[in-house]
Amino acid sequence: METIQSRDNPLVKKIRALAHSGRDRRKLGQTVLDGAHLVDAARQGGYALREVLLSDSGAGRPEHLALIAALPDEVRQVCVPDALFRQLSPVESPSGLLAVIDLPETRRTLPTEGDVLLLDRVQDAGNLGTLLRSAAAAGVPVAVLTPGCAQAWSPRVLRAGMGAHFRLDIIESDDPVAWLERYRGAVYATTLGPGSRDLFETDLRASGVWLFGAEGAGVSPALLAHASHPLVIPMPGAIESLNVAAAAAIGLFEQLRQRRFTR
Amino acid sequence: METIQSRDNPLVKKIRALAHSGRDRRKLGQTVLDGAHLVDAARQGGYALREVLLSDSGAGRPEHLALIAALPDEVRQVCVPDALFRQLSPVESPSGLLAVIDLPETRRTLPTEGDVLLLDRVQDAGNLGTLLRSAAAAGVPVAVLTPGCAQAWSPRVLRAGMGAHFRLDIIESDDPVAWLERYRGAVYATTLGPGSRDLFETDLRASGVWLFGAEGAGVSPALLAHASHPLVIPMPGAIESLNVAAAAAIGLFEQLRQRRFTR
Repeated sequence: METIQSRDNPLVKKIRALAHSGRDRRKLGQTVLDGAHLVDAARQGGYALREVLLSDSGAGRPEHLALIAALPDEVRQVCVPDALFRQLSPVESPSGLLAVIDLPETRRTLPTEGDVLLLDRVQDAGNLGTLLRSAAAAGVPVAVLTPGCAQAWSPRVLRAGMGAHFRLDIIESDDPVAWLERYRGAVYATTLGPGSRDLFETDLRASGVWLFGAEGAGVSPALLAHASHPLVIPMPGAIESLNVAAAAAIGLFEQLRQRRFTR
Repeated sequence: METIQSRDNPLVKKIRALAHSGRDRRKLGQTVLDGAHLVDAARQGGYALREVLLSDSGAGRPEHLALIAALPDEVRQVCVPDALFRQLSPVESPSGLLAVIDLPETRRTLPTEGDVLLLDRVQDAGNLGTLLRSAAAAGVPVAVLTPGCAQAWSPRVLRAGMGAHFRLDIIESDDPVAWLERYRGAVYATTLGPGSRDLFETDLRASGVWLFGAEGAGVSPALLAHASHPLVIPMPGAIESLNVAAAAAIGLFEQLRQRRFTR
């Protein structure tokens, strides 16, 4: 395995840029994965690793050795000192393993039917990753993100997604309103507006878009206007609202339950 | 309103300590709240504010003026320059308003019946706060935290809790296993172990403890041994697991649904 000591090495500089700059990720069309779990998930999802970087102390870990042993020859493998690795890592507790992958090509055409998770202006990386993870777990195949969302392929969102990125079609849409106008299924949205129906008293079996917005700001009115099923999650406790990722988990899995048990 | 310029002022030093040090919070028996929403929630929950600190630019905001106007005379009110405020604030995007409250007295006796959320070694502050928020929204009155959890009253957990702290009895327990042995209700736990039953095919109406553990490490075997209802959330998607706060939201609200609709 190749060893690099210099922080000015071009590969080291590239990985630092991918780890810390959304603009560089877009420009280079790549991102960086931290840890064996994410790297395994990417490979199982059919993503080719471009480069693999290990810290000195990370190189000896069994889960890393197994992963390295299974790599094709053309994947460049590099080892760096621990101190240098810590500077590159996008996360606070570096795992000792980073891998570069190409970002998937963005789909040009958005689906006009089928299940979709539509996220509006969700800026918190942890929430965004958790939302993608719940969608993937529920078997929703597509996630559409509005321009105000955090970058889906940032290391922090990837970490919270725990592999969901490699099971979903993630579409960062420029014009979600125009798409929603053409979409032909139901549009489910939790909102406190008039006309909202109790989630548990509503038939959720039809294919549809689940629309969730940023906490605080909520869903844009232009998107919310297309909700065919405005919903409210009943909350007996004296609290105003749920975390957006908690609300989405409740909605997606209530839909699953109804599809299995309601005929 | 009193003005303070110096970072060495005793009140400024105390607030900095409360914002950044769990040990100091325990030693002083106080914590610090960031933003009008949390401060309002604390007052509605019957918590007395000890001191209120505003930044120069925060002092003029309408939601802060309304809050200040309603304060009893004995609450010390202090204004500091924006730069000093930023050093004190426990969060990245300071709201311009901090308030000191006393930590509630810890209950000595834990409940032996009724609904409880039991969290084991949940270290992520965002997850912990979201879990407390979902429990409060679902009307669960008590949360028990094992020693491995993040500090419940840290500013980051408070922020994610969005006021849930003031609606729950939060008990940081030294010996959760001994308590669970004495608890007389059901103990629900999601686990992949043998004997787990489908969440949606299990009667969840009985009062009980909901037990959730850290991601990765999971629930301690000594706690899990007391699960009367080992559960699995059915996941059609090709993903291993849900975020702990998403899983808890699904479980707590499925219990709510069953209590309302199943007779």
